[in-house]
Amino acid sequence: MSIKTPYVAVDGIVMLYDSKEVFKGIVLIERKNPPFGMALPGGFVDVGESCESAVVREMKEEISLDVQIIRLLGVYSDPQRDPRFHTVSVVYICKAYGEPEAADDAKKCFIYLPDKIPMEKLVFDHAKIVGDFLRNREDNT
Amino acid sequence: MSIKTPYVAVDGIVMLYDSKEVFKGIVLIERKNPPFGMALPGGFVDVGESCESAVVREMKEEISLDVQIIRLLGVYSDPQRDPRFHTVSVVYICKAYGEPEAADDAKKCFIYLPDKIPMEKLVFDHAKIVGDFLRNREDNT
Repeated sequence: MSIKTPYVAVDGIVMLYDSKEVFKGIVLIERKNPPFGMALPGGFVDVGESCESAVVREMKEEISLDVQIIRLLGVYSDPQRDPRFHTVSVVYICKAYGEPEAADDAKKCFIYLPDKIPMEKLVFDHAKIVGDFLRNREDNT
Repeated sequence: MSIKTPYVAVDGIVMLYDSKEVFKGIVLIERKNPPFGMALPGGFVDVGESCESAVVREMKEEISLDVQIIRLLGVYSDPQRDPRFHTVSVVYICKAYGEPEAADDAKKCFIYLPDKIPMEKLVFDHAKIVGDFLRNREDNT
Protein backbone atom coordinates (compact mmCIF):
# COMPACT_ATOMS: atom_id res chain seq x y z
CA MET A 1 0.00 0.00 0.00
CA SER A 2 1.51 3.29 -1.08
CA ILE A 3 0.14 6.23 0.87
CA LYS A 4 1.19 9.81 0.34
CA THR A 5 -0.23 12.48 2.62
CA PRO A 6 0.91 16.01 3.54
CA TYR A 7 3.60 16.49 6.18
CA VAL A 8 2.34 17.11 9.72
CA ALA A 9 3.73 19.96 11.81
CA VAL A 10 2.79 21.67 15.05
CA ASP A 11 2.97 25.34 15.96
CA GLY A 12 2.59 26.92 19.36
CA ILE A 13 0.95 30.16 20.42
CA VAL A 14 2.95 30.56 23.60
CA MET A 15 1.40 32.94 26.11
CA LEU A 16 4.21 34.04 28.37
CA TYR A 17 3.59 34.95 32.00
CA ASP A 18 5.87 36.22 34.73
CA SER A 19 6.08 34.60 38.15
CA LYS A 20 3.29 36.88 39.38
CA GLU A 21 0.96 35.54 36.65
CA VAL A 22 1.12 38.80 34.72
CA PHE A 23 0.74 38.21 30.98
CA LYS A 24 3.86 39.39 29.13
CA GLY A 25 2.92 38.56 25.56
CA ILE A 26 3.14 35.98 22.78
CA VAL A 27 6.49 34.49 21.73
CA LEU A 28 7.50 34.86 18.08
CA ILE A 29 10.75 33.81 16.44
CA GLU A 30 12.86 35.05 13.60
CA ARG A 31 13.49 32.05 11.36
CA LYS A 32 17.01 30.85 10.66
CA ASN A 33 15.92 28.91 7.56
CA PRO A 34 13.76 29.74 4.54
CA PRO A 35 11.15 31.05 4.35
CA PHE A 36 12.83 33.93 6.21
CA GLY A 37 10.78 36.18 8.42
CA MET A 38 8.96 35.94 11.71
CA ALA A 39 6.85 33.00 12.74
CA LEU A 40 5.25 31.13 15.56
CA PRO A 41 7.66 28.56 16.97
CA GLY A 42 6.97 25.07 15.64
CA GLY A 43 8.24 22.13 13.65
CA PHE A 44 7.51 18.73 12.19
CA VAL A 45 5.95 15.89 14.13
CA ASP A 46 8.15 12.80 14.33
CA VAL A 47 6.80 9.36 13.52
CA GLY A 48 6.06 7.74 16.90
CA GLU A 49 5.33 11.05 18.61
CA SER A 50 1.93 12.58 19.39
CA CYS A 51 1.19 16.14 18.28
CA GLU A 52 1.02 17.19 21.94
CA SER A 53 4.49 15.75 22.63
CA ALA A 54 5.79 17.36 19.44
CA VAL A 55 4.66 20.86 20.37
CA VAL A 56 6.17 20.55 23.88
CA ARG A 57 9.45 19.29 22.35
CA GLU A 58 9.56 21.96 19.63
CA MET A 59 8.92 24.81 22.10
CA LYS A 60 11.77 23.48 24.24
CA GLU A 61 14.08 23.18 21.23
CA GLU A 62 13.31 26.50 19.54
CA ILE A 63 12.53 28.90 22.37
CA SER A 64 13.94 26.97 25.37
CA LEU A 65 10.66 27.02 27.31
CA ASP A 66 8.74 24.28 29.08
CA VAL A 67 5.20 24.86 27.91
CA GLN A 68 1.90 23.61 29.18
CA ILE A 69 -0.74 23.01 26.52
CA ILE A 70 -3.95 24.94 27.20
CA ARG A 71 -5.94 23.73 24.21
CA LEU A 72 -6.03 23.07 20.49
CA LEU A 73 -6.60 26.24 18.45
CA GLY A 74 -7.11 24.61 15.07
CA VAL A 75 -5.75 22.68 12.12
CA TYR A 76 -4.37 24.63 9.16
CA SER A 77 -4.10 22.62 5.99
CA ASP A 78 -4.45 24.87 2.96
CA PRO A 79 -2.12 23.30 0.36
CA GLN A 80 -0.65 26.78 -0.33
CA ARG A 81 0.09 27.73 3.28
CA ASP A 82 3.70 26.52 3.17
CA PRO A 83 5.67 27.70 0.10
CA ARG A 84 7.97 24.65 0.28
CA PHE A 85 5.48 21.76 0.21
CA HIS A 86 2.11 20.80 1.62
CA THR A 87 2.20 20.87 5.41
CA VAL A 88 -0.74 20.46 7.80
CA SER A 89 -0.15 22.41 10.98
CA VAL A 90 -1.84 21.50 14.24
CA VAL A 91 -1.79 24.62 16.40
CA TYR A 92 -1.89 24.59 20.19
CA ILE A 93 -2.33 27.47 22.63
CA CYS A 94 0.29 27.04 25.35
CA LYS A 95 1.35 28.76 28.55
CA ALA A 96 4.90 29.26 29.80
CA TYR A 97 6.97 31.11 32.37
CA GLY A 98 10.52 32.43 32.14
CA GLU A 99 12.60 33.92 29.38
CA PRO A 100 12.55 32.47 25.86
CA GLU A 101 15.95 31.84 24.32
CA ALA A 102 16.36 31.18 20.60
CA ALA A 103 17.91 27.88 19.52
CA ASP A 104 17.71 25.30 16.72
CA ASP A 105 15.66 26.77 13.79
CA ALA A 106 15.09 30.06 15.66
CA LYS A 107 17.57 32.89 15.19
CA LYS A 108 15.98 35.25 17.67
CA CYS A 109 12.99 35.38 20.04
CA PHE A 110 10.54 38.22 20.53
CA ILE A 111 7.74 38.80 23.00
CA TYR A 112 4.82 40.83 21.69
CA LEU A 113 1.67 42.02 23.34
CA PRO A 114 -1.27 40.98 21.11
CA ASP A 115 -1.93 44.46 19.70
CA LYS A 116 1.76 44.95 18.87
CA ILE A 117 2.29 41.77 16.81
CA PRO A 118 3.85 42.71 13.43
CA MET A 119 1.38 40.71 11.38
CA GLU A 120 2.94 41.77 8.06
CA LYS A 121 6.25 40.13 9.00
CA LEU A 122 4.76 36.72 9.72
CA VAL A 123 5.52 33.97 7.20
CA PHE A 124 3.39 30.97 6.17
CA ASP A 125 -0.25 31.55 7.22
CA HIS A 126 0.81 32.59 10.70
CA ALA A 127 -0.92 35.98 10.47
CA LYS A 128 -4.18 34.10 9.90
CA ILE A 129 -3.46 31.74 12.81
CA VAL A 130 -2.61 34.64 15.16
CA GLY A 131 -5.72 36.47 13.94
CA ASP A 132 -7.87 33.44 14.75
CA PHE A 133 -6.28 33.24 18.19
CA LEU A 134 -6.91 36.92 18.91
CA ARG A 135 -10.54 36.78 17.78
CA ASN A 136 -11.09 33.61 19.73
CA ARG A 137 -9.53 35.20 22.80
CA GLU A 138 -11.86 38.19 22.53
CA ASP A 139 -14.85 35.87 22.26
CA ASN A 140 -13.86 34.25 25.54
CA THR A 141 -13.58 37.48 27.50
CA MET B 1 15.98 17.75 3.34
CA SER B 2 14.48 14.43 4.35
CA ILE B 3 11.35 14.80 6.41
CA LYS B 4 9.35 11.90 7.78
CA THR B 5 6.13 12.60 9.63
CA PRO B 6 3.05 10.49 10.44
CA TYR B 7 0.35 10.03 7.83
CA VAL B 8 -2.58 12.46 8.00
CA ALA B 9 -6.16 11.22 7.88
CA VAL B 10 -9.60 12.67 8.54
CA ASP B 11 -12.62 11.07 10.17
CA GLY B 12 -16.16 12.36 10.27
CA ILE B 13 -18.77 12.21 12.99
CA VAL B 14 -21.74 12.51 10.68
CA MET B 15 -24.94 13.59 12.41
CA LEU B 16 -27.75 12.51 10.16
CA TYR B 17 -31.03 14.42 10.02
CA ASP B 18 -34.23 13.83 8.11
CA SER B 19 -35.87 16.50 5.96
CA LYS B 20 -37.86 17.70 8.99
CA GLU B 21 -34.60 18.36 10.89
CA VAL B 22 -35.17 15.40 13.20
CA PHE B 23 -31.88 13.86 14.33
CA LYS B 24 -31.66 10.24 13.17
CA GLY B 25 -28.26 9.28 14.55
CA ILE B 26 -24.53 8.99 13.82
CA VAL B 27 -23.26 7.12 10.76
CA LEU B 28 -20.84 4.25 11.34
CA ILE B 29 -19.38 1.88 8.78
CA GLU B 30 -18.30 -1.71 8.75
CA ARG B 31 -14.78 -1.74 7.30
CA LYS B 32 -13.98 -3.67 4.12
CA ASN B 33 -10.25 -3.67 4.86
CA PRO B 34 -8.15 -4.46 7.97
CA PRO B 35 -8.45 -3.65 10.75
CA PHE B 36 -11.92 -5.22 10.48
CA GLY B 37 -14.73 -3.90 12.62
CA MET B 38 -16.84 -0.81 12.85
CA ALA B 39 -15.49 2.69 12.49
CA LEU B 40 -16.26 6.29 11.78
CA PRO B 41 -16.07 6.96 8.05
CA GLY B 42 -12.76 8.54 7.04
CA GLY B 43 -9.56 8.23 5.06
CA PHE B 44 -6.22 9.72 4.16
CA VAL B 45 -5.71 13.33 3.17
CA ASP B 46 -4.23 13.74 -0.30
CA VAL B 47 -1.27 16.01 -0.95
CA GLY B 48 -2.73 19.23 -2.34
CA GLU B 49 -6.02 18.86 -0.49
CA SER B 50 -7.10 20.58 2.74
CA CYS B 51 -8.39 18.49 5.65
CA GLU B 52 -11.81 20.07 5.21
CA SER B 53 -11.93 19.06 1.54
CA ALA B 54 -10.68 15.60 2.45
CA VAL B 55 -13.43 14.93 4.98
CA VAL B 56 -16.13 16.11 2.54
CA ARG B 57 -14.62 13.90 -0.21
CA GLU B 58 -14.25 10.85 2.05
CA MET B 59 -17.82 11.08 3.35
CA LYS B 60 -19.04 11.21 -0.24
CA GLU B 61 -16.85 8.23 -1.23
CA GLU B 62 -17.54 5.98 1.75
CA ILE B 63 -21.10 6.74 2.80
CA SER B 64 -22.39 8.58 -0.30
CA LEU B 65 -23.47 11.69 1.62
CA ASP B 66 -22.83 15.37 1.00
CA VAL B 67 -21.80 16.63 4.41
CA GLN B 68 -21.53 20.09 5.85
CA ILE B 69 -18.73 20.57 8.38
CA ILE B 70 -20.01 21.91 11.69
CA ARG B 71 -16.68 22.15 13.50
CA LEU B 72 -13.39 20.48 14.36
CA LEU B 73 -13.74 17.98 17.21
CA GLY B 74 -10.05 17.29 17.76
CA VAL B 75 -6.77 15.83 16.56
CA TYR B 76 -5.92 12.25 17.53
CA SER B 77 -2.26 11.41 17.20
CA ASP B 78 -1.30 8.71 19.68
CA PRO B 79 1.34 6.64 17.83
CA GLN B 80 -0.51 3.44 18.88
CA ARG B 81 -3.98 4.49 17.72
CA ASP B 82 -3.65 2.83 14.31
CA PRO B 83 -2.31 -0.76 14.43
CA ARG B 84 -0.87 -0.44 10.91
CA PHE B 85 1.36 2.64 11.21
CA HIS B 86 1.35 6.08 12.80
CA THR B 87 -1.63 8.10 11.58
CA VAL B 88 -2.76 11.49 12.85
CA SER B 89 -6.51 11.84 12.49
CA VAL B 90 -8.21 15.21 12.24
CA VAL B 91 -11.83 14.69 13.27
CA TYR B 92 -14.71 16.88 12.14
CA ILE B 93 -18.31 16.96 13.31
CA CYS B 94 -20.52 17.08 10.22
CA LYS B 95 -24.18 17.25 9.37
CA ALA B 96 -25.95 15.47 6.53
CA TYR B 97 -29.37 14.60 5.17
CA GLY B 98 -30.51 11.54 3.26
CA GLU B 99 -29.63 7.88 3.35
CA PRO B 100 -26.02 6.73 3.69
CA GLU B 101 -24.92 4.08 1.21
CA ALA B 102 -21.72 2.10 1.69
CA ALA B 103 -19.04 2.33 -1.00
CA ASP B 104 -15.26 2.30 -1.38
CA ASP B 105 -13.65 1.14 1.91
CA ALA B 106 -17.03 0.76 3.61
CA LYS B 107 -18.81 -2.59 3.43
CA LYS B 108 -21.98 -1.49 5.20
CA CYS B 109 -23.44 1.63 6.82
CA PHE B 110 -25.25 1.88 10.12
CA ILE B 111 -27.12 4.70 11.81
CA TYR B 112 -26.97 4.70 15.59
CA LEU B 113 -28.54 6.94 18.17
CA PRO B 114 -25.77 8.12 20.53
CA ASP B 115 -26.75 5.84 23.43
CA LYS B 116 -26.94 2.81 21.14
CA ILE B 117 -23.46 3.04 19.60
CA PRO B 118 -21.69 -0.33 19.99
CA MET B 119 -18.49 1.16 21.41
CA GLU B 120 -16.84 -2.25 21.86
CA LYS B 121 -17.01 -2.92 18.11
CA LEU B 122 -15.20 0.28 17.11
CA VAL B 123 -11.66 -0.11 15.79
CA PHE B 124 -8.69 2.30 16.08
CA ASP B 125 -9.34 4.83 18.88
CA HIS B 126 -12.81 5.56 17.52
CA ALA B 127 -14.51 4.66 20.83
CA LYS B 128 -12.44 7.40 22.45
CA ILE B 129 -13.30 9.86 19.66
CA VAL B 130 -17.03 9.06 19.89
CA GLY B 131 -16.81 9.34 23.69
CA ASP B 132 -15.22 12.79 23.38
CA PHE B 133 -17.97 13.82 20.97
CA LEU B 134 -20.75 12.61 23.27
CA ARG B 135 -19.27 14.33 26.34
CA ASN B 136 -18.71 17.49 24.38
CA ARG B 137 -22.27 17.34 23.08
CA GLU B 138 -23.65 17.05 26.62
CA ASP B 139 -21.56 20.04 27.68
CA ASN B 140 -23.20 22.12 24.96
CA THR B 141 -26.76 21.30 25.92
